[in-house]
Parts: sequence; C-alpha cells; structure tokens
Amino acid sequence: MKFSANSVWESKDKYDVAVIGAGHAGCEAALACARLGFKTLVFTVSVDSIALMPCNPNIGGTSKGHLVREVDALGGEMGKVIDRTFIQSKMLNRSKGPAVHSLRAQADKACYSRTMRQVLENQENLEIKQTEVVNILTEDIETPGAEKKKKVIGVQIYSGGIYRCQAVILCTGTYLKSRCIYGDVSMNTGPNGLQAANYLTDCLKELGIKMYRFKTGTPARIDKNTVDFSKMEEQTGDERIVPFSFTTDPESIQKEQVSCWLTYTNEKTHEIIRQNLDRSPLFSGMIEGTGPRYCPSIEDKVVKFADKNRHQVFIEPEGLETNEMYIGGMSSSLPEDVQYAMYRTVPGLENVRIVRNAYAIEYDCIDARQLWPTLEFKKIDGLFSGGQFNGSSGYEEAAAQGLIAGINAARKLQEKEPLVLDRSEAYIGVLIDDLVTKESHEPYRMMTSRAEYRLLLRQDNADQRLTEKGYEVGLITEERYQRLLYKEKLIEEEIERLKKVHVGTEKKVQEILQKYNSTPLNSGISLAELVRRPELSYECLEEIDKDRPEFPNDLKEEVWEQVNINIKYEGYISRQKKQVEQFKKLENKKIPANIDYDSIKSLRIEALQKLKEYRPVSIGQASRISGVSPADISVLLVYMEQYRNRE
Amino acid sequence: MKFSANSVWESKDKYDVAVIGAGHAGCEAALACARLGFKTLVFTVSVDSIALMPCNPNIGGTSKGHLVREVDALGGEMGKVIDRTFIQSKMLNRSKGPAVHSLRAQADKACYSRTMRQVLENQENLEIKQTEVVNILTEDIETPGAEKKKKVIGVQIYSGGIYRCQAVILCTGTYLKSRCIYGDVSMNTGPNGLQAANYLTDCLKELGIKMYRFKTGTPARIDKNTVDFSKMEEQTGDERIVPFSFTTDPESIQKEQVSCWLTYTNEKTHEIIRQNLDRSPLFSGMIEGTGPRYCPSIEDKVVKFADKNRHQVFIEPEGLETNEMYIGGMSSSLPEDVQYAMYRTVPGLENVRIVRNAYAIEYDCIDARQLWPTLEFKKIDGLFSGGQFNGSSGYEEAAAQGLIAGINAARKLQEKEPLVLDRSEAYIGVLIDDLVTKESHEPYRMMTSRAEYRLLLRQDNADQRLTEKGYEVGLITEERYQRLLYKEKLIEEEIERLKKVHVGTEKKVQEILQKYNSTPLNSGISLAELVRRPELSYECLEEIDKDRPEFPNDLKEEVWEQVNINIKYEGYISRQKKQVEQFKKLENKKIPANIDYDSIKSLRIEALQKLKEYRPVSIGQASRISGVSPADISVLLVYMEQYRNRE
Repeated sequence: MKFSANSVWESKDKYDVAVIGAGHAGCEAALACARLGFKTLVFTVSVDSIALMPCNPNIGGTSKGHLVREVDALGGEMGKVIDRTFIQSKMLNRSKGPAVHSLRAQADKACYSRTMRQVLENQENLEIKQTEVVNILTEDIETPGAEKKKKVIGVQIYSGGIYRCQAVILCTGTYLKSRCIYGDVSMNTGPNGLQAANYLTDCLKELGIKMYRFKTGTPARIDKNTVDFSKMEEQTGDERIVPFSFTTDPESIQKEQVSCWLTYTNEKTHEIIRQNLDRSPLFSGMIEGTGPRYCPSIEDKVVKFADKNRHQVFIEPEGLETNEMYIGGMSSSLPEDVQYAMYRTVPGLENVRIVRNAYAIEYDCIDARQLWPTLEFKKIDGLFSGGQFNGSSGYEEAAAQGLIAGINAARKLQEKEPLVLDRSEAYIGVLIDDLVTKESHEPYRMMTSRAEYRLLLRQDNADQRLTEKGYEVGLITEERYQRLLYKEKLIEEEIERLKKVHVGTEKKVQEILQKYNSTPLNSGISLAELVRRPELSYECLEEIDKDRPEFPNDLKEEVWEQVNINIKYEGYISRQKKQVEQFKKLENKKIPANIDYDSIKSLRIEALQKLKEYRPVSIGQASRISGVSPADISVLLVYMEQYRNRE
Repeated sequence: MKFSANSVWESKDKYDVAVIGAGHAGCEAALACARLGFKTLVFTVSVDSIALMPCNPNIGGTSKGHLVREVDALGGEMGKVIDRTFIQSKMLNRSKGPAVHSLRAQADKACYSRTMRQVLENQENLEIKQTEVVNILTEDIETPGAEKKKKVIGVQIYSGGIYRCQAVILCTGTYLKSRCIYGDVSMNTGPNGLQAANYLTDCLKELGIKMYRFKTGTPARIDKNTVDFSKMEEQTGDERIVPFSFTTDPESIQKEQVSCWLTYTNEKTHEIIRQNLDRSPLFSGMIEGTGPRYCPSIEDKVVKFADKNRHQVFIEPEGLETNEMYIGGMSSSLPEDVQYAMYRTVPGLENVRIVRNAYAIEYDCIDARQLWPTLEFKKIDGLFSGGQFNGSSGYEEAAAQGLIAGINAARKLQEKEPLVLDRSEAYIGVLIDDLVTKESHEPYRMMTSRAEYRLLLRQDNADQRLTEKGYEVGLITEERYQRLLYKEKLIEEEIERLKKVHVGTEKKVQEILQKYNSTPLNSGISLAELVRRPELSYECLEEIDKDRPEFPNDLKEEVWEQVNINIKYEGYISRQKKQVEQFKKLENKKIPANIDYDSIKSLRIEALQKLKEYRPVSIGQASRISGVSPADISVLLVYMEQYRNRE
C-alpha cells in the first residue's frame, strides 16, 4: 500500500529527531535524544499503548535481565520504571554461577505503561503525537566517489503533514502491516487489536530497504476467578528484592509480592493439539512469517519435542488492578475452540474462561545487516532503527537497541563519534553485533550462551562496565558517576585488605569453617583465600573479620557482592580478560569505510559478495560474517597492511 | 459486510444474557443482569477500553447529572465509580432553582475506566470476552394470529463461535461500521483508533431492523506543557463536594481538586474556520451521518451563529496521570493543519501542541422507535438495546438506557413485568419515551427543558423517586432501602415540626431577619413560613430554631436540603403533582398489544400508518407521536371504550 495524500502541509513546529513508535525501543530512543538536548517527536498509533507489553507480563529473565541492567547503566529508563511497577521479583539461577544470575520481575502491565508514559510526557524536549507515519522523506547526498546515498530530511503523517527533522528512528515493533491470526481467522491489526501501520513498508522498500516477514505469538489471557490454584505449585518472589536500576535504593522497593503458579500440560493436551494441527495456520501455510525458535508456540513444542509428555505452564498475573492472567508457555494460533479444549486439559484450568484468546501476529521487519553497528542504515544517512523492527524479539532486546539508536542519532547530530559496544563489553554489544552481522531468518532472542565473555558481562557489574560510557555520552549525572567511582574504590580497597588480612587456627575461625563444612586450617591464611573456597563466601566470614569496614547503607549490598565475586572468580575473570585482549585486537583493526573490495584479488567470491554487501566495520566483525572464512580474513589483513603502507 | 465463518463451533459455556459492548451502556446493562442472578457475558473489542470516555472528560452536567443520580437511585454503577475517580466536582446552576441544579464532575478518564473494569471483573455471574460479535442468532416463534416474530437464541463471534443465550443487549455505541474523519482523511476505526465492528449492521438489517447513520465529533487533546494558563480564567471545583451516589459518604470524598480553564475563540479563529470550510468534510459532503444539534463542532457554531464573535473554550485535564488536556467546545473535523492554525488563535493556546487531533466519527445506529419503552425490539423477542446505538449521545444517556435494558432483559427472564419509568417519574423516563416515540434524525441529548415536570424530577430527590423501584427490582439492598425510608421519615417529621413551631418578635429573630434583609415580624409566624421567604432558608434559621433535632451525620446534609426545598417550593410542587395526575390518566390507558388499527374507521391515514408502525403502549405515548393529532387520539379513545365494552 503506497501512501498518497490528498493534501500535503508542513508543520510549523521544528524537531531534531522523529521516533516512530513508542514501545520499549521507541521510549528509550526518544528519551535518550531528548535528554541529550534534541527536540524529539515520538509518533505512536495509540498514546494509550505507550510501553505496552502485548505478550508476557514480565521484564528481565535469563540474559534479558542483563540487558535491562545494561540499559540502566547507560542511563536508560526501563530499569527505573520496572522498579516502580513490579509486583514480584526474583533473581533467577541463584544456584548457578554469577554469570547466569538474572533478575526477572513480574510487571503490573497497565501501571508500567502509564508510568513510562508519564516519564515521556514530563521529559523536556520530548513531545508525543498520535498518528501513523506513512513516509520517510529523504534527499540524495553527494558522497565523493562512492555510490549514491540518501539522507533523512523528515517524515510524513497520515493526514499529509510533513515534519522536518535531521534524524529518524524506526521503532515500529510488530505494527508494520501486522496481521493477527488464529485458526482460520485473521485480522489486519497490530497486537491486541490495535491499529496496524500499513504504509511505511512500501516507503522503506522504495528506499531500497530489504524487508522480512516475521511472526510471533501470545497465549490467551484468562479470568483469575476461573482458575483452581490448589492444583498448581505456587511460585513466590525473592525474600530480599534486588532492584533493576543501580539508582534504586533496595530498601525502598521491599514490598508485598503476588505469586505466579506452575502447572503442566499432559498427554491429553498434546493429543488435542495433534488432532487439530491441520487447523493450525502455522502448519496450514496461512502464516508466512517465521516464528521465534526460542519462544515457540505450544503446538510447535508438541510437534518438535514429540517425546516430551509435558511442558511447563506458568500462570502469571497481568497486574494488581485486573483479574486477567497470562498462560506462560502456551502461546498458540490454534482455532479458538481448540484453545478452549487444550487449555482446559491443564490441571487447574479445567473450567477456565478465556478473556482474550491466543493468536499469532505477522509483521514486517528488516534484515538488520543493512545497519551499521550504530544502528544507522548504511544506505540512508540519519535513519536509525531499533527493536522488533530489526528482527529481534523481547521487550529488553528492544529497549537496548532503542537506547543505542537514540544515543547514536543524538551523537550524529552532535557530530561526535558513535557509541558502539563490542561483544566483550556488554550483552548489548553481542545483541547488536549478532543482529547486524549474522544472517537470521527468525526473531532473534538474547541468550547467555550467545556471549563469549559472560563471566565478565555479569548483570551485577553492568554499572562498572558501562556507566562511565553513559556519563561520557551525557545520560548519567555527575552525582551518579561519582557514586560509581566511590563504589569502585570501596570494592578495590576491600579486596586488597582481604588479601592482606590473615587468620590463623584460632577456635573462632575453625568453628566457622566447621559450620560451613570447610577444611580446618593448619596454619595462617588470608581472608581472600577463604572467600575463594566454594563452600564459603565473603558474607559468611563476617564474624571472623573484625576489621571489616562499615560501608554506606545504600552501597553495602553492592560492594559485598562485588568483593565476593571478584575474589571467588579472580582466576577465571583474569583468564577471560586475556581472551578479550585477543578479541579486541581484531575488533580494533578497522576496515576503511571506502575500501574497494573488488581490488582484493584472492578473496573467494562468496566472501567478496558478503563483504561488499554488509561492509563490516572491523576485521573482527568481518570474521563473524557467515561465508567469510579465516583464509579470507588473512587475505583481507594482508591487503589492509599494504593499503596502510601505501597511504 | 456480511459475516461468513469458515468454521463454526459452539461454546460449552452457558449464559443467560449476552451484552455486546462494554461502554457506559454495556457496563450498566451487564452489571444489572449479573446482579439479578443471570449468567452474563459481555463482549468488547477491547478489554482495555471498558467504560472508555472517548470524548469529554466529565460525567454529569445539566440534566445529565440528573440521569447519573437516577441511575444510582435504581442501583446502577456510574455514580459510584465517578465518586471514586473524580478530580473536580461542581454543582452547576446553584444560583437558579433546585430543578436545574446539576452535578458535574471532571473524571480521571483512565482511572474511571479501570475502576469500572474492576467492578465488572469482580462481579459474580459476569464474564468479559474480548472479541467482535458478528451475528445475532434468532429463531422464528409462533405468535397466535399476529405477524411472524423472531426470538433471540444466541450470538456468533468473529472466530465462528456460537454462544447460546436467552437475551442479547446491544450496546455498540459508536463502533458499528465506524469511520473517523478529519479533512480529507478517513479511517475505518472506532473512536481513538480502536477497532470498529463491521459485521453486525448487516445482520441487524437482515433481521428487519432499520438503521441510521449518525456522526459525532471530538476536539483535539493537547499537551498541558504547551498551554499558557495565565491567559485563561481558572475554573475551580466546589468547596463542599456533593457525591453523585446516594451511597457515598460526603465526608469521604472531600479532597484536593484540579482546575479547568476558560478561554474564548475570537474573530481570527472564526476567520480561519470560514476560510477553510471548503476543506471540512462536514460541508464537502464527505460526512454522511447527522451530527448532534446540541453538541456542534466549532465550524458548525461559526456557520450557524455567524453574528457571535466568540465562543467559550474550556481546557480540561484528562486525568491526574497524564499531561493531555481536552479542548471543550472546539470539536472539529477540519483538516489537521487547519486545526493547528485555529487552536493557536485562542488566547493561551498560541504555542499549543496537539497530541491527538480532533475528528468526526460516523457510525451505524437505529431508529429507536423500533423499541418498546422496555428497550426491547418490538420485532425480536429477547433483543434489547441501549446507549448511542439507540441514537442518543452522551455517557449518562447511555448508562441510563443500559441500566433499563439490563433490568428489563433480566425481568423478562424472570417472567416479571418490565420496568418502565414514565415522564413524570424520571429523566430516564423522558429520555426513553422521547427515543422510542419521537422521530429524530440526529443524536439525542438530554436537556432539562425536555422534562415537563422538572420541579419534581430533581437530582436531589432521585432516591425518593426511584430507590423503591430499584429495591423491588432487586438492585438495591435492604439496608439501603431502610436507610431511604428512615431519611424520608426524618424529612417528613421535620417539615411537620417546622410548620408547628412558631417564632415571634423577639430580638434574636429580628436580628436574623435583618441579617438576611428580610422584613421584620409584627407577630408570630411558623418557621416553615420563614423558610419559604426567598431570602431565607432552612439553613440560615438554625440559630433561632432551638429545638432543631440532631440528624445522623451521614444524612444531615440530605435531610436539610430536602426540608428546605420541600417547604420553599411546596406550592409549585403540589401544582405540578396535579398535572402529573392528569398525565398519568392518559399513560395508564394502555393500548392492547393486539389492537387492530385497520378496523378503526375514522383515523386519518397518517395517524393510522404511524400507529401501526410504532405501536404505542398507551394513549399517552400515542399522543406524543408526531403525526397523531388530538382528534386521532379522541377516535382512538372511543374505539378503545367500545372495545372494552365488547370484551
């Protein structure tokens, strides 16, 4: 559908940046630009659906919790808002190593949405406008020698109005030509019946942007009053709640929490699903888009894991002010009658009433390899994108990209170097590098296993990794930065002290060791050595550590945790740091933007094509492109050496 | 668009009543049915938009406040919810007589919506389902002798699912085939971009229901931060807040209020509008529907009242948790660029930013003369309707009809006499009688001038007029009814006492009279006589009324008010009561349902046609049908006399 306006007019209001979409990506992008001083206009098809959570009612979880922490460490908003609106909180994987500890919070969805909306409404330099953007306006720019390029000059809205600006950030989520499907029923709407955006795709295609069609899905929402919780296992939150944001005082968020509930599918459920597969739009071919491998529908799971006789089902509240609950683990696009039949086989859901049925949603998105790691389009100056539009899935992945896109749009206008995080610095770096480098034909989901250096990229140290960068960008206040430096100093000094303080065979020490089933001492040993023992920790040695300093109340928990982890995993951490040094060498070998790949003789044809198409910024990125072999990289390195010598 | 489902299935869940739509009519209808013990299923296209206020952010106002009070007196919900969610409250027209005192409250829209949703979610026997209803299922029934009739047996939803039930209440508001329009832009959506319901109209037409197309409109929503309030007049709430609901303790709702702001259009505004009239869809013919005469767009006002050089504009907050504000008095369907230009001519709005633009909305509704005064369709047993679908406008009008439709659907299933309020009993009676009797080609709005007996139909005595009926219906608790009886007893006794207690020429009395510029006494007079003096009141005589009884705290304000009004207006009230007796005589002359109008010889042809078509239930109703003359009524009366004699 190409847009054609009857009347064209131009807005008298001037903006620097236009953000299209006010979901989790759009909110972060817009806030970042506005906070960095740029007049920012956010377009949304529904002001009432800002920061909507159209699927699961939680923020965080394995690896996603890391992303939220990183967004926060850089000066983003998601962590602060979930800290204000969560109704249950849990640090996952506590029994495992600190690399995979991940914070997850159940959100009061409606409250999250309106809290974020208020943040936007009260942000200086930021304005919200409810309308559909139908065109990205560009003009050609001269690039000496190289191919023709365009640059963004504004956007056009549904009424024909034109808003001039210097940068546009596309955060359209699942709204582009979206179609909701269950059984043989389909509707051309965005999630939850909201308006789709039907015009932008064709405009983007005309700009030479290659589009994909992805799909995702959501389970039914059910009426709490029709659930028998006595047949389910209660899932409570943590006793001591850890905040997402490094700015949230832990004391301020200790509160009463609500429970989630665990139940399971069974053979009867699977039988009903198998019997009705021919009526599933996924298998009938009615759905064209590709779904998320790591967040499959229940019918997908039943087909792919045919030997499993049950799957977990989590019943989660959607908020404090509604009786609706979410059926985690059972998203589906089966016909509505099958949905009733299948949900009612699950223990506790025998009499369940569906308030909103499950559905799949198809939408247009892009092949993100058309983007620089800055999230700017390679072919169109000033056009950035973030979130599900880039082929990812998940609120947290969206927020992370939105923040980076926003920062880089602002830095472009500031004529400053962009902010690019590499794979050794942040999950955000892994996420974006994967998106812009690796071929993917399904919605991309963050996972800890995707990170090579995950012992370094912990959720607990996101501030130490990133807050200085956020400060340099201008999204972190001086006060917050100074607090971080102070915290780092405390940690460092405490680690040094523990290495120096020795304890001996005195009774009190042996008693503590015995208490924790730790080998008794024969001679003196440093406290640091004791912390390193797996069965001990910094915390449990408090009694025999008489000179332990008093830390400020609001920092104590963080400092203790860092001291403990840094001493315990010192060996692993320093080994991983050495690997990072190796990695950095290739990352830092930047490939000149104007490199002429055709003049490199010995490249294999596939590598030549891929390199020309995706134009990696570094040897490191080039080496991760599928189809570029180590031999090609060697050729490239030799060529670059010669090139540098020539210059 | 006729619906055709690929797969048809039948729900295993059984319901008595289906309510289609969860706006102000649907909520009251559903709550009434559920509270009267019937399994009720409410369908809505958006659970997040239950009790949405798509236009102005207030409840009540002249004559509408009366409706809310009456809804409350009968056991409806609107008054209770606004009492919990208002942000400013004002009793309008206090300087005028008590007949036109009207309560109006600014609502926190989002809070109102979610509060009502919670009431629905927590109501026993009530379930909510998000989907579009596409078909009303009926079957033919035998009616001895008379024409063929149908009865409702269920509804079909978008996925093909069938829900069996015995009654259906249509409360589709502005959602049937709705189209939003401004300038040359139109979108096939419901209000605020919500999904329209596109299938039901054709189903209704096939059932023989005659449809109209009406339109209404809404102004822009603007960003509070871009308004200069220093150029406007502040409009504050009442110092002493009066609740809407008779069940709300006044003490519990005294709170801090927010302000509204008054400003005006001017010649420059009007000039811009006039210059762009050719671009208005209203005048270009793009809008087919008929708009509300008493709630015109600003372009309508400028055209119709060409001599007025300014119109009032009220800037009203949309809620406490948003910066959006409503521009009361300036609804429009002019193109978006003209909206900017015109709003920015208004003092205080020079730099205003529009968050959501103004638009007109067209929708399908019915000619309500197809309904009995019970709000059941004459041709289709068990099919009821309420609200904007019936051709009215306004949240309060909708709630009133929804309540009556709900009560009567329930009473039908209970096989009890329906509840029909006549024009002497309630504004609700006037509203429904007007809708089902009088021809109207535009959205109907309640006004005090439409009520013949408005001194009796005051907002302050709605409980005395209606709560007994609500009690008999089963929506009013025993406790509440006993409280009313007790209050009435207190009022009556106090009036009697005041008629008996005399004061004389003592100094204290004369001082009070002097204080209020009232003629001094020459001899003794009853306190009642003094209350009757215009410059005095029951309240200001407290000092010289030594034996005035102590009333219970929660009743004191109400009793004082009733005593005062009843004494002051005793003469007028008793005169109006006599008129009502006359009126009742005609209302009580019921026309037999099986009357054969063709056999009445001397009826004029127009009267014959109208009577046959609209089948009035009483001589009273017949006399109000346009085209039925007093002579026709005489003929009808004679015929009925003969008929009765024959029986």
